[in-house]
Amino acid sequence: MSTSFNYPDAVSIVEVGPRDGLQNESAPLATEDKVALVEGLVAAGLGYVETGSFVNPRWIPQMADSGDVFQQIKRAPDVTYAALTPNLKGFERAMEANASEVAVFAAASESFSQRNINCSIEESIARFLPVMEAAKTAGVRVRGYVSCVLGCPYEGQIEPPAVLAVSQALLDMGCYEVSLGDTIGTGTPGSMDRLLETLVPTLSARRLALHCHNSYGQALANILVGLQHGITRIDSSVAGLGGCPYAAGASGNVATEDVVYMLQGMGIDTGVNLDALIDVGRSCCKKLGRETQSAVAKARS
Amino acid sequence: MSTSFNYPDAVSIVEVGPRDGLQNESAPLATEDKVALVEGLVAAGLGYVETGSFVNPRWIPQMADSGDVFQQIKRAPDVTYAALTPNLKGFERAMEANASEVAVFAAASESFSQRNINCSIEESIARFLPVMEAAKTAGVRVRGYVSCVLGCPYEGQIEPPAVLAVSQALLDMGCYEVSLGDTIGTGTPGSMDRLLETLVPTLSARRLALHCHNSYGQALANILVGLQHGITRIDSSVAGLGGCPYAAGASGNVATEDVVYMLQGMGIDTGVNLDALIDVGRSCCKKLGRETQSAVAKARS
Repeated sequence: MSTSFNYPDAVSIVEVGPRDGLQNESAPLATEDKVALVEGLVAAGLGYVETGSFVNPRWIPQMADSGDVFQQIKRAPDVTYAALTPNLKGFERAMEANASEVAVFAAASESFSQRNINCSIEESIARFLPVMEAAKTAGVRVRGYVSCVLGCPYEGQIEPPAVLAVSQALLDMGCYEVSLGDTIGTGTPGSMDRLLETLVPTLSARRLALHCHNSYGQALANILVGLQHGITRIDSSVAGLGGCPYAAGASGNVATEDVVYMLQGMGIDTGVNLDALIDVGRSCCKKLGRETQSAVAKARS
Repeated sequence: MSTSFNYPDAVSIVEVGPRDGLQNESAPLATEDKVALVEGLVAAGLGYVETGSFVNPRWIPQMADSGDVFQQIKRAPDVTYAALTPNLKGFERAMEANASEVAVFAAASESFSQRNINCSIEESIARFLPVMEAAKTAGVRVRGYVSCVLGCPYEGQIEPPAVLAVSQALLDMGCYEVSLGDTIGTGTPGSMDRLLETLVPTLSARRLALHCHNSYGQALANILVGLQHGITRIDSSVAGLGGCPYAAGASGNVATEDVVYMLQGMGIDTGVNLDALIDVGRSCCKKLGRETQSAVAKARS
């Protein structure tokens, strides 16, 4: 059996640690430590860093200082410093903070949408219209997240047509890319393969990214399936920030170190210096008082 | 890009926890607990359990009671209870203990062979000749292990021709199958693909098994590559027994729970009841006073 894929020469890593990661950590990180984290990640070669979120701080106090983080970071050229913006107010704050681009989010599961953002999937899409309009006027790119693409804590398995519908809606309203989130990490190469067999022919691999959680240890295998489908944009989080694996329903993001190690081993360029990245993760974990969730970082310690 | 592989309908799991796993645990397990472990694994549906090792107890004290384990287990029909036998004396003890089959081992790295078994690769192969002869006379099947197929702690990367040579030698001398061990877990889908591109056309996938360690988090992705090359025999260890991930140079076996979860998600039959398997792993970890290394078991806790 031949396995000669046309693997890509290069993959872009979307580093989500400073936002998606820290938002789901119980321990807070000081603003200056967040700034050091973002700058360290960029120095290690990451070209896209989700830097913060402009949401109501009553909902997500961990991100209350995102404006300060954006103001204080020393920026490198050609690096994308992105912000999550749930509504027009958030978008305006992101623009004041000089975010390079913004992101909106929807779910592929109706129950998850209702419980997580208090509205239906359709309503959530409609709510983002003002953000999309304002971003278009400002000439700012918008990324779309879809959560629960392979499983939902309330509904169990999610079928590909549901993911296709919401992904198509986000692209139609102006998102340049949709990041497919296996939010609870229950996906396998089987369900990922079925999902991408449905999505890629319609939406095209170049408009899709994968956002895998490693709760069930499946993330790298699922990402490998994505690469085999032609996907070249991978979300990951330094040190696997974003969920304690020892808690019930744990849902840590796949560790950037582990993704980079795999891609390097496959001869795929990421632009990332793995040793420098491991140091950045180690330093952040020390400040958080938690253990890294990167297998590579553990093995190299 | 099409990814429609002819994945197998079924995969045989070779459970190595009671031997390869426990041999590399610092805490000892009482004989009665080993017996319970083996019986529990079989009750969970595993059809092949590496039950013990007949080596000099001065070298590996953890396996000193393997004869007792073999004597005390209640056996199920059609289950293989295998033993590692480094020499003729070990083989004779394995036969006294009524082992279903035996295994011998060599390395793909000359330095590892020298430091681990105190002889060259060629000498190690020659030393197994009496075992092979005795096994043939007794009508007992012999499995071959090759360690360091993707990396060596002393030599770094190992090239496929070296693995091909030692694997071919083991098959030529009568092993029915060679298990390819990524002993230090540094392999990636890149190096695994290159290895199997060399080995499979010559040796055939049906005579190869994969034995992956998850030290760098790559095991499931590497196993996926193996399945795509037609391999249907996978070694794994319940709870990832066999190496603490928090120690330097950690080298835990891939957890059987995580392999089974992936295969089930791909619609590939293993005959294993995952819930029962998780319970067996949990019980064993409790006795060992260590944490499970199975992501699936952690997520389900």
